[in-house]
Amino acid sequence: MRRTIFYVSDGTGITAETIGHSVLTQFDGIEFDTFRIPFVDDEAKAQLACVRIKTSFAQTGMRPIVINTVVDPALTEVLTASGALMVDVFAPFIGPLEDELGTPRSRHVNKAHGLVNFAEYEARINATNYALSHDDGVSTNYADADVILVGVSRSGKTPTCLYMALHYGIKAANYPLTDDDLDNIELPSRLRPYRSRLFGLTIDPQRLAQVRENRRPNSKYATIEQCRWELAQADKLFKRENLPLQNTTHTSIEEIASKILSTLGIEKHMF
Amino acid sequence: MRRTIFYVSDGTGITAETIGHSVLTQFDGIEFDTFRIPFVDDEAKAQLACVRIKTSFAQTGMRPIVINTVVDPALTEVLTASGALMVDVFAPFIGPLEDELGTPRSRHVNKAHGLVNFAEYEARINATNYALSHDDGVSTNYADADVILVGVSRSGKTPTCLYMALHYGIKAANYPLTDDDLDNIELPSRLRPYRSRLFGLTIDPQRLAQVRENRRPNSKYATIEQCRWELAQADKLFKRENLPLQNTTHTSIEEIASKILSTLGIEKHMF
Repeated sequence: MRRTIFYVSDGTGITAETIGHSVLTQFDGIEFDTFRIPFVDDEAKAQLACVRIKTSFAQTGMRPIVINTVVDPALTEVLTASGALMVDVFAPFIGPLEDELGTPRSRHVNKAHGLVNFAEYEARINATNYALSHDDGVSTNYADADVILVGVSRSGKTPTCLYMALHYGIKAANYPLTDDDLDNIELPSRLRPYRSRLFGLTIDPQRLAQVRENRRPNSKYATIEQCRWELAQADKLFKRENLPLQNTTHTSIEEIASKILSTLGIEKHMF
Repeated sequence: MRRTIFYVSDGTGITAETIGHSVLTQFDGIEFDTFRIPFVDDEAKAQLACVRIKTSFAQTGMRPIVINTVVDPALTEVLTASGALMVDVFAPFIGPLEDELGTPRSRHVNKAHGLVNFAEYEARINATNYALSHDDGVSTNYADADVILVGVSRSGKTPTCLYMALHYGIKAANYPLTDDDLDNIELPSRLRPYRSRLFGLTIDPQRLAQVRENRRPNSKYATIEQCRWELAQADKLFKRENLPLQNTTHTSIEEIASKILSTLGIEKHMF
């Protein structure tokens, strides 16, 4: 079975899409065709969205489902006229929170991913620049690092560092283990002062060989023997140094980042 | 007034934090101390979370608020015993969606940001590598680009490209306008074949000068005169070429990305 989902928001639609995705993954056996309608912040745009939803209803013969984070009830009313099943993300929580906090919510447009303050913006940009300049051993001055990811080449370090920078403003460096490190089963001395900020990444050898093969076809670097050896040596090193560790093979970037933050006790928050 | 918020999840906690952040920004004048408790997927971890929430209640004298995305009702019950105000993110939507879809939800642990399939993972990693190798004019082969951001140095191109890569698996290149381009008010010929994928970024001169000053203090590059001139020339170029345009000064990375996607009609979805 297929059903059509519209994420409608007066802002970016990220909140609608995040919660919609989470809820929909709980329904097995249904295929969802999903569409984003962001920045619906006046009546004309709401009317346009309504027409689009109605058209989908007519074309598919199935009632579309609208995951809605539009704050203004007048605009939600316009959307409801489309005949879709309306799932209002905020509505159920506003009452209990107003009671608990003893204050009514303000009714301005969804601010969660909109206006920024410069300090936050700067923290993200600086962290992103930091990740880029401390990627793959480019700079090895780790004094400012909040976290240093350690692992063999292509074990998932770079995307994880960039994700933590963009999302949490975390200064994340990464150190690719060299042949010397692996031969000696020893951390390089310049990492030693920062032991409490080290976090190891590992990956299954089959998967690593596949990733490396895509990158450098038919190289020794991509052979399963080479991958097995590097990972075995790295695992010995992680055990010997007692580093916290995550296998990235079946783990999303979000989950790896979340594990690192909770393991190292970093309480930075999302933007 | 200050209140304590716990984001509790059987997965990463990203959904809980996203919706919690969206709802809480609607309450003005209250400071929130927020804490993440991810991976609460068995009773022992739920008991531990409960103790932590109770301790906060005792220390602050104020009832904590729990934004909860734990799927297993038995674990939610353990959390509820903490005495916190429980805000269950999924509960209000499950009933209506089960009715509409004609099937009960499956009760496995929140999968939204957990297990990955390799195709998705590969798309994100490839897009991230693409953004890195097509950053700042490093590679100027744009044939595979889904989008090419154009703007002066430090107008916000790199973080936006990385964000779109990590979040949507979008191949985003960026092209920094050169002095030649700005002098001639003309796009370089190698961008011409990809006109429909170009998107301009601009920024306020004051803000640009500040960002550049942080990067290269006391340089001509960072003077307000230089910034004004470059931005004025770039704006003329954008107008002449009729490129879609976003000012990044007061706009978050999420919002810039969302605007680009909706303007260029790219319907890729979040991971």
